[in-house]
Amino acid sequence: MKVLDNGYVKFIESFGSDEMVIESARMSTDGGFRGWETDLRLLRYLWTNRHHTPFEMGGLCFEIQCPIFVAREWHRHRTQSYNELSARYSELPNLYYIPSVERLQAGKQSQKNKQGSEDGFSQEDAINFRQDIIEATARARVTYEHLLEKGVARELARLVIPVNQYTRFRASANLRNWLHFLFMRLDASAQVEIREYAGAVGRIIKEKFPHTYGLFEEGLK
Amino acid sequence: MKVLDNGYVKFIESFGSDEMVIESARMSTDGGFRGWETDLRLLRYLWTNRHHTPFEMGGLCFEIQCPIFVAREWHRHRTQSYNELSARYSELPNLYYIPSVERLQAGKQSQKNKQGSEDGFSQEDAINFRQDIIEATARARVTYEHLLEKGVARELARLVIPVNQYTRFRASANLRNWLHFLFMRLDASAQVEIREYAGAVGRIIKEKFPHTYGLFEEGLK
Amino acid sequence: MKVLDNGYVKFIESFGSDEMVIESARMSTDGGFRGWETDLRLLRYLWTNRHHTPFEMGGLCFEIQCPIFVAREWHRHRTQSYNELSARYSELPNLYYIPSVERLQAGKQSQKNKQGSEDGFSQEDAINFRQDIIEATARARVTYEHLLEKGVARELARLVIPVNQYTRFRASANLRNWLHFLFMRLDASAQVEIREYAGAVGRIIKEKFPHTYGLFEEGLK
Amino acid sequence: MKVLDNGYVKFIESFGSDEMVIESARMSTDGGFRGWETDLRLLRYLWTNRHHTPFEMGGLCFEIQCPIFVAREWHRHRTQSYNELSARYSELPNLYYIPSVERLQAGKQSQKNKQGSEDGFSQEDAINFRQDIIEATARARVTYEHLLEKGVARELARLVIPVNQYTRFRASANLRNWLHFLFMRLDASAQVEIREYAGAVGRIIKEKFPHTYGLFEEGLK
Repeated sequence: MKVLDNGYVKFIESFGSDEMVIESARMSTDGGFRGWETDLRLLRYLWTNRHHTPFEMGGLCFEIQCPIFVAREWHRHRTQSYNELSARYSELPNLYYIPSVERLQAGKQSQKNKQGSEDGFSQEDAINFRQDIIEATARARVTYEHLLEKGVARELARLVIPVNQYTRFRASANLRNWLHFLFMRLDASAQVEIREYAGAVGRIIKEKFPHTYGLFEEGLK
Repeated sequence: MKVLDNGYVKFIESFGSDEMVIESARMSTDGGFRGWETDLRLLRYLWTNRHHTPFEMGGLCFEIQCPIFVAREWHRHRTQSYNELSARYSELPNLYYIPSVERLQAGKQSQKNKQGSEDGFSQEDAINFRQDIIEATARARVTYEHLLEKGVARELARLVIPVNQYTRFRASANLRNWLHFLFMRLDASAQVEIREYAGAVGRIIKEKFPHTYGLFEEGLK
Repeated sequence: MKVLDNGYVKFIESFGSDEMVIESARMSTDGGFRGWETDLRLLRYLWTNRHHTPFEMGGLCFEIQCPIFVAREWHRHRTQSYNELSARYSELPNLYYIPSVERLQAGKQSQKNKQGSEDGFSQEDAINFRQDIIEATARARVTYEHLLEKGVARELARLVIPVNQYTRFRASANLRNWLHFLFMRLDASAQVEIREYAGAVGRIIKEKFPHTYGLFEEGLK
Repeated sequence: MKVLDNGYVKFIESFGSDEMVIESARMSTDGGFRGWETDLRLLRYLWTNRHHTPFEMGGLCFEIQCPIFVAREWHRHRTQSYNELSARYSELPNLYYIPSVERLQAGKQSQKNKQGSEDGFSQEDAINFRQDIIEATARARVTYEHLLEKGVARELARLVIPVNQYTRFRASANLRNWLHFLFMRLDASAQVEIREYAGAVGRIIKEKFPHTYGLFEEGLK
């Protein structure tokens, strides 16, 4: 599932299911899954009363390709398991996030909302900013490759790499923690770029855990 | 898989595999699984150098029936997810752990090892102790059922229930954390009863992740 | 701070402060604590918008004496650190929780609320139930001491110990996690006994982190 | 405590002590601290037998200023609590890590050790590489400031910022987890730059928990 210009969210694996959540919750009363006619009510009860442990009995693993600045925000979620491309072991791929002209037109520093951006630039301005970013990125790449060519260690050559550099990692977590991730990263206050990744993750979770995701979506409204 | 007199460890689900561990580890060098001829060396390298995060990319879920005193030790492992039978929601099953005569013969308070037990009782003594435990358990059960019959709330009637009462729960964790659980609970200093559960868990992990489990077993020696 | 008939919550230590929460939150904007006239607004913003990480920069450690059935619920909170009295290393103290007559009068199995209890017994009934619990507890204790006297290992003699046995442990966690504990355990659906412990914990937190606790209390309403 | 050219590790707070570790461990046997003549043996027993929970009863909080590439490695430790300078809320400081000539002379890509670096460059080469890094950094900064001046949102202008940019955060963890951090980050396979930070952290821990740190250091040998 393509995200941004060169990124993706790739489904690797899932375990458990909506039914498994019910079965696990029924451990407390010594029962099992009875069918969605009655069990949707139980699922709703668990979710809205914050009995969240049964939602730990399912989970998903994804492979993500995203810019470093997105990965930095992502890795603040400490309940996920990560394995990432290492800039010490490998040469970094020649892939950088260059925002679209539309994104940059909407990328004026917001005054009301100190952390965000808002509409406001002409197309011409946006095209110029984009060119600035493209050139800065290209120059950094030239220095990086030059240093590598001269034999400088990858762990040092990478110092000049900008944070729009694409990286790649696997992320595994249980359903409860993925939904918390989405709660934080689908929020309007999150940066547009990570929200696109969260959206892609959400669409895959919706396929695998449709009943739970439905309840989660209701809560977002 | 039967454990003790009335307990079990039941496999519910697993995710990932030895191959998935390798694939996740190769995220750092931008490669994938190459075949066990070469990759067993990588797996060994990861394990012995404590690069443990790739082992978080697999996991297992079990259903456990065990005495409360075993569950108490088990639940000290805070990286597992649990859903347990609730003595507030349900009447507790009439199932109690009564140690065998052999176990009791070997159940003398150790002086050297203050936390453990050792051989030392005659069969006759052991039979008497066993009878004491059976009677104490039966009396507690009678009081419990009497209180329930009178309409006393389950959450209060259970106060008289002894810790050899069987309970039931699901436990889910990733492979890294299961192996840490086994490391602690297969150890000679762990109580015999939880070691039997750990043994059963280990046999199932061995089936699902044979290469990783092989390395773990080497380390135990 | 006394709780139930033989229990307590004892303050051991705290770290951080409301001011430290503000200072840590200000890391993001490169500022520090400015005084409560302006910073109470920031604290409220953090709390209500679920920016919870600054609340991890304070914490508390308590020593708790409580019945095993309360400790069982407590230890399901996996973000706390525990060190508990071991029934393998030590003889258990002759201390048991015997509910008051008032508690038992209000201890009828609720039909509406399957997990709880409600008013309904006469004083006479309650006195009888209390006597049943006292006798069951005393008989279990006699068996326990008899087995110990005969030299049976502590780890086996304890099998007959009921869950109203008092245990003792230390619990340490950061402020964010303590407030989550209180959120769950002050709730009307929690069992009365653990709610009393949560109340005692809350009163101590209120002293050490008055501004944060004030916001937490508002949220409970 | 100064680290690298523009970084530091600043002690903010600690809680607990070596004595508190002992006291907490003694919860299991119902005792307290007895004096270091006898208790050093207990501490050693706990440490070498991996009874690690008592070491969770102490902890420390630091403020760190370090390059982004160091922070990226640091934040993979998921048991610490973090609050970091946000490039969305604030303009990033004009502070970049420029390796010394000596570091660059020893910064040749190692062939044996694929992730590291080793001696091998002439002083002249190293001076040239240093100049390349300085220039790449300066150019990136010029573009960053230009974009900010034109009103581009901080969250977008920062795309061109290289990973030698200094950032700043607070990190809080318990003693057990700090020692695990040091175990990983003092290791010869860790990158020199994070090892310097780990060294500074270790010197402060040594002051606050001298007995525990002594045992930790023995284990490193």
